[in-house]
Amino acid sequence: MPHALHDDAIVIDGLVISRWSRSVFEHMHRGGLTAANCTCSVWEGFRPTMESIARWQGWMREHADLIRPVHCVDDIRLAKREGRVGIVLGFQNTSALEDRPDFVGVFKRLGVGVMQLTYNTQNLVGSGCWESRDSGLSDFGREVVDEMNREGVLVDLSHVGPTTSRDAIAHSSRPVAFTHCCPSSLKPHPRNKSDEELRFIADRGGFVGVATYPPFLPWGDDTTVEHCVEVFERVIDVVGEDCVGIGTDFTQDQDSAFFTWLRHDKGYRRRLVPGADRPVRNPAGLDDLACYPNLTAAMERRGWRESRIRKVLGENWMRVLGEVWR
Amino acid sequence: MPHALHDDAIVIDGLVISRWSRSVFEHMHRGGLTAANCTCSVWEGFRPTMESIARWQGWMREHADLIRPVHCVDDIRLAKREGRVGIVLGFQNTSALEDRPDFVGVFKRLGVGVMQLTYNTQNLVGSGCWESRDSGLSDFGREVVDEMNREGVLVDLSHVGPTTSRDAIAHSSRPVAFTHCCPSSLKPHPRNKSDEELRFIADRGGFVGVATYPPFLPWGDDTTVEHCVEVFERVIDVVGEDCVGIGTDFTQDQDSAFFTWLRHDKGYRRRLVPGADRPVRNPAGLDDLACYPNLTAAMERRGWRESRIRKVLGENWMRVLGEVWR
Repeated sequence: MPHALHDDAIVIDGLVISRWSRSVFEHMHRGGLTAANCTCSVWEGFRPTMESIARWQGWMREHADLIRPVHCVDDIRLAKREGRVGIVLGFQNTSALEDRPDFVGVFKRLGVGVMQLTYNTQNLVGSGCWESRDSGLSDFGREVVDEMNREGVLVDLSHVGPTTSRDAIAHSSRPVAFTHCCPSSLKPHPRNKSDEELRFIADRGGFVGVATYPPFLPWGDDTTVEHCVEVFERVIDVVGEDCVGIGTDFTQDQDSAFFTWLRHDKGYRRRLVPGADRPVRNPAGLDDLACYPNLTAAMERRGWRESRIRKVLGENWMRVLGEVWR
Repeated sequence: MPHALHDDAIVIDGLVISRWSRSVFEHMHRGGLTAANCTCSVWEGFRPTMESIARWQGWMREHADLIRPVHCVDDIRLAKREGRVGIVLGFQNTSALEDRPDFVGVFKRLGVGVMQLTYNTQNLVGSGCWESRDSGLSDFGREVVDEMNREGVLVDLSHVGPTTSRDAIAHSSRPVAFTHCCPSSLKPHPRNKSDEELRFIADRGGFVGVATYPPFLPWGDDTTVEHCVEVFERVIDVVGEDCVGIGTDFTQDQDSAFFTWLRHDKGYRRRLVPGADRPVRNPAGLDDLACYPNLTAAMERRGWRESRIRKVLGENWMRVLGEVWR
């Protein structure tokens, strides 16, 4: 699948939550990925998250021919020049901070550049999109956002509740993001965002990463890479082409036990997300992490201008990450 | 201060948060206290709370001439017969549970008979009385209350936010308590409870422990033991005499550093409770934990019948603890 424009472009994925291994890194590398936000904490508290980061440091050493750490946008440019995949470590929750907002700076120095405020349910910071009620960003949550602003960590709101999201967008002094979501105009779903929500974040300098995750899409298991380009277009219709990027939510090699863990509160309590926990069937043409060139080709087939393709593949992500991490 | 009725009665204090020492235990013993809910966790997580409980186990051994552990109401009757003070361990927060509702049963077996759902601010379970907003008991919070109901742990709502309190009262299948509060009809204060709130808990089989903590009272530093009896009467006027008991909030020997810790979110973040952190000046006549007989004497001087005095001193607490711990 070599592809001239794709090979030349900066390609950034705003959310990958795969079962990390040399095989996964090889697929990312083959897919021409310049950098990705790689989840290293979901339900974990401080200590297990540190263990996860320590494992990542081992992988960075062991697979240095394929991946490199990313602390700033220059590291992403370096990754592109070196032909390696830049690894941005990311949290899908703030459980790792426990009761210490000042741990934001500790994790930032260890390479954590993105933190989602809540994962599906209420925590000390705010509420999640699968929680019954959401009174918004807590007082402690405002302090956490302040620390993330000061330290230069991107606030991610993908799995966050609507009121907490709105509060965080209004409160944050730096751009925030839905790193991986789909529009609810295509399919109503607790994880999807209404046009109003997409406009609210975009109007305040925020960012929308588009997921290619079939459970969020009307075509379900029949989703194709062409459908995914339609999803990008639907989002661009609402917010324009300058604040949109990729956020696939690739779960490569994860087994059903992993989905069971993800879909229960705290990893083991009540079920939040209904349905069977079988691994997700990826869109046809985006079967694995080596398939990003097919997305670029599908954008071209839909008649996108090169400038739009480059923006959506990675330039928009570069701009917003530069604003947040500076 | 020997006093025939006091010496014969069961005397229970629903909340003591003193600086634990042999001196404090001697005062409690001299005060004729049969049992007390003794705070062993406020902002602490799981591990430091376990350390606190381990310290308590040492004190129970070392000061076995003065104190004994309490796991059930029969243990309180035993304490009375033995002339020792029964120690009910209590949490003022659910931070010690971290993300594990099933730790409720672990702590219960270690002697923790009372758990306050939140301390002043939002946590995983709900919101506190010093938090800006309160969307009520979280979905996880409902599971925690369910565990407390099943294990027989008293749900304490003293520092909990109004919406979370209302939700917990409605959700709990066993009686719940404000273990230590004053009526806001006497002084508006985030920690005080309106007549409506007092009626709501009482109408649903709940309990009100009356605090003798001058910052909650209109007389401030000039509060006397006679004023405290007026506070009991004000609460009895609202809820009757059968669901009211003592919950002093005695902070004996605590220093200003302790109050500074208490009054900041998580013990060290933003200030929640305004004002200087000097140790509290106790009501005249209730200067320390040896002074409970003065309270009984003041009740008699106000013309209370013996049956009312016995109920308020401890019989009401015995009934509600029997219903919850059974």
